[in-house]
Amino acid sequence: MKLSWNRYGKASVRLVKVDRGDGLHTVRDFTVDVQLEGAFERVYMDGDNADCLATDTMKNTVYAFARQHGVETPEAFADRLAVHFIAQHAVATATISIVEHRWARLSVGADAHPHAFVQPGADEWTTVVTRSATRVSIRSGLRNLVVMKTTDSGFSGFPRDAYTTLADTSDRIFATSMTASWTYRQGAADFSLRERVRRTLLETFAAHASLSVQHTLYAMGRAVIDACADVDEITLSLPNRHHLPVDLTAFGLDNPNEVFLATNQP
Amino acid sequence: MKLSWNRYGKASVRLVKVDRGDGLHTVRDFTVDVQLEGAFERVYMDGDNADCLATDTMKNTVYAFARQHGVETPEAFADRLAVHFIAQHAVATATISIVEHRWARLSVGADAHPHAFVQPGADEWTTVVTRSATRVSIRSGLRNLVVMKTTDSGFSGFPRDAYTTLADTSDRIFATSMTASWTYRQGAADFSLRERVRRTLLETFAAHASLSVQHTLYAMGRAVIDACADVDEITLSLPNRHHLPVDLTAFGLDNPNEVFLATNQP
Amino acid sequence: MKLSWNRYGKASVRLVKVDRGDGLHTVRDFTVDVQLEGAFERVYMDGDNADCLATDTMKNTVYAFARQHGVETPEAFADRLAVHFIAQHAVATATISIVEHRWARLSVGADAHPHAFVQPGADEWTTVVTRSATRVSIRSGLRNLVVMKTTDSGFSGFPRDAYTTLADTSDRIFATSMTASWTYRQGAADFSLRERVRRTLLETFAAHASLSVQHTLYAMGRAVIDACADVDEITLSLPNRHHLPVDLTAFGLDNPNEVFLATNQP
Amino acid sequence: MKLSWNRYGKASVRLVKVDRGDGLHTVRDFTVDVQLEGAFERVYMDGDNADCLATDTMKNTVYAFARQHGVETPEAFADRLAVHFIAQHAVATATISIVEHRWARLSVGADAHPHAFVQPGADEWTTVVTRSATRVSIRSGLRNLVVMKTTDSGFSGFPRDAYTTLADTSDRIFATSMTASWTYRQGAADFSLRERVRRTLLETFAAHASLSVQHTLYAMGRAVIDACADVDEITLSLPNRHHLPVDLTAFGLDNPNEVFLATNQP
Repeated sequence: MKLSWNRYGKASVRLVKVDRGDGLHTVRDFTVDVQLEGAFERVYMDGDNADCLATDTMKNTVYAFARQHGVETPEAFADRLAVHFIAQHAVATATISIVEHRWARLSVGADAHPHAFVQPGADEWTTVVTRSATRVSIRSGLRNLVVMKTTDSGFSGFPRDAYTTLADTSDRIFATSMTASWTYRQGAADFSLRERVRRTLLETFAAHASLSVQHTLYAMGRAVIDACADVDEITLSLPNRHHLPVDLTAFGLDNPNEVFLATNQP
Repeated sequence: MKLSWNRYGKASVRLVKVDRGDGLHTVRDFTVDVQLEGAFERVYMDGDNADCLATDTMKNTVYAFARQHGVETPEAFADRLAVHFIAQHAVATATISIVEHRWARLSVGADAHPHAFVQPGADEWTTVVTRSATRVSIRSGLRNLVVMKTTDSGFSGFPRDAYTTLADTSDRIFATSMTASWTYRQGAADFSLRERVRRTLLETFAAHASLSVQHTLYAMGRAVIDACADVDEITLSLPNRHHLPVDLTAFGLDNPNEVFLATNQP
Repeated sequence: MKLSWNRYGKASVRLVKVDRGDGLHTVRDFTVDVQLEGAFERVYMDGDNADCLATDTMKNTVYAFARQHGVETPEAFADRLAVHFIAQHAVATATISIVEHRWARLSVGADAHPHAFVQPGADEWTTVVTRSATRVSIRSGLRNLVVMKTTDSGFSGFPRDAYTTLADTSDRIFATSMTASWTYRQGAADFSLRERVRRTLLETFAAHASLSVQHTLYAMGRAVIDACADVDEITLSLPNRHHLPVDLTAFGLDNPNEVFLATNQP
Repeated sequence: MKLSWNRYGKASVRLVKVDRGDGLHTVRDFTVDVQLEGAFERVYMDGDNADCLATDTMKNTVYAFARQHGVETPEAFADRLAVHFIAQHAVATATISIVEHRWARLSVGADAHPHAFVQPGADEWTTVVTRSATRVSIRSGLRNLVVMKTTDSGFSGFPRDAYTTLADTSDRIFATSMTASWTYRQGAADFSLRERVRRTLLETFAAHASLSVQHTLYAMGRAVIDACADVDEITLSLPNRHHLPVDLTAFGLDNPNEVFLATNQP
């Protein structure tokens, strides 16, 4: 028996890097895979791990490099990691794969927003019409509108009980996949209003000084009701996509709110 | 025991409607759900189907209505269906849900293309860097770039054997979720080239007089190689998302390439 | 420029084959991919389709072969298709990939059922407890319990209107992914009852002479209420996974309810 | 404007609880959702978080309760959480939803294994036949065979560099979704061999004293080659589904390898 597939690695390291220069933030959002190939016979055959770099170490390296060297093009960032890993003793070849997720700067009126972003195009329009002999209800909406703001969002003053470990924060990332639906006033017939609803939601998200997800959710709903007389009622869902600042102190690095592990939690 | 959830229906009817007026095509892409609620006790308790409109009939009605009445806003189209279904004997309430999938007109240079479309934003950038002590290979790409052209695509002259039923066609919809990746020439360092690759792929897709998926795939790859000296080699995947013209003759309707059942096949 | 990836094919052909010998049915459930590789230069470069077997023909061949030759092991069925396709003019290599989905015969008491089947293990238990200061409600359930019966299911006598094309049938496949949830009587504390609910649902599904999905749904709910005194109320969802008999007459073959295209519709 | 949906919560807390009594382990695998509803007007309208229990605290509570009170039925565990949360100041109603994922004890010969488990039924058989004019290759396999062992797995002695934070461990959970495929010797025709391959893989996984994932992967491949003369070559993929022991010290609790956060990483 011959060992012919002597490779292993770490998949799906979710890295978000924010640069905050001058208040005009930029965001890079990567999913990184690391694969090492080499003379790992002793690892596989004997259970001797002296040449087996832990996949956890690979993950740490991705986050530390993002802080130390910055995130330039995915090609250059991938190669920087590859150069690092082939210096390992048993490694013959390193393969770094990156998927870059696109973010566009949100526009407010004619202006590009300095720290609010949207994933272009993924959202879809929804409509539910319910009709009986005597009544019709028209509910329209949108789903999967993915947005992020890299500052102007905090969460503090919440209750602390025996199970509370979360620290107060006055500056965190706020990212969410927005779902909204609203009911039209009886008789309303201009459904192109949905464009104004969408714009109002985005602009309020961008502008709001957020003290919690709920706080911004309410402000967004309120803004739509105020801006659109034909909207009777609106329901919003803003599930938090947590972005956890990575603790880099073990590597002698600080992390001034720049390097995040992105979770895609519902 | 009381029957309290007396409702049923048809989910996920995939409708694509093309309007071809004057050569400037427009596309509407809907997923439609139909739910009927009413006095269906005999259906559930006795197996008497006299009041049980078949879900297959609901599906047919969606396609026939698209041809007969056109597809205006999702709200109006949904309500037209609802009005129809509550006229059924046992139906008390009809609920029609529509998700509208967004398509944007493709731009070629400064011009909006008359019959080529793109789903905005869903695509992502990819990179794979493979490095050994002596060699580095940089492969970049994009994935999930969803495009459609509503004419200028045919497929005919293929072999006919005992299992062939497909008719020749000179005018069909060509839709695909494009994946591409290419290798950079050794030493190339300007990875912003990917924008030019993407644009070249889109413009060739739009402009090509397609005799088969393979024919267009080759033309797209060729165009990239011609336009980008730093691209050594390109691999393309264009899985056909079939759009089947719906046969409406049973309902006394023709279908001049306007009403399609969309499949999301790989 | 050299053409180096000259291959194409048809993915995800969903084949279900029922053998009905002696009333003890057997079921084979395959997803089949066909890939052809060869001298397709003219197809790609010139748009000449004389060597381009249509992917639609590949799909037809899968269904026709299932009828003509039966479905033995996936290995033998795949190779039979491969032998057929490499006889095509330009084909150098045919690759047939099959995924076989597992079905187990349903047991009723100690006996194996002749024509009712279950996908082993995919289902999960669910619970929702809702509590306020004054009230607690305990709702348990199961989801994704995938079952099929290959006879003893019909659908006829439904209304026929201008949009009805579905024929009456007295013998069709009934397949579904079952979701159920039920509320326990106040004070009930023996939640191992869920095993009896599950068994009752399965046995009723298997035994019921089904005149419609709704008819069987009601019978299943009724049976649980009758068998389990601690169940106050039950909600069931049985979305039809249609299995369409494939029309093989164009290939000179009948189809006595044996070869089906499986859809995974919600 | 009236606030009518004043609820929020934490979704998808992934809890695995191992009981190790007497060496015969038991496993419970839950996904838990917490939803609180109540008088949260000040949270939403004013950004005052005094009544807004952090969702992070909800997650901590789930893990701490699993350690403090054990995991009995999902119904009782859910209600215990609900009772806790409605004691919060502003909470009127707590809704706890649990999905329980099924694990079955692995059998080795006639015996139930004390600490190896399998998710029943989710795996599927695969086959790829590749044929040219002169050659046929038959490759069979299985995918999505989800297994776990709750002891007899360690990982230590791996290289420590500047980015290494992982501690050596001699006792961790080893869980994976196994994919395997193997090539048959030319001329082999008894494809029922796959059952023996599957059994050999499972029994080796259960019995192996694992020093790393790679170490067990090799042992499993070796065992198949030794047991099945008609298997020429086997490829295995065992992506680690990490189970992270939850640090409960902040809550005054130890965690003797019993309470885990399950990740579903690829």
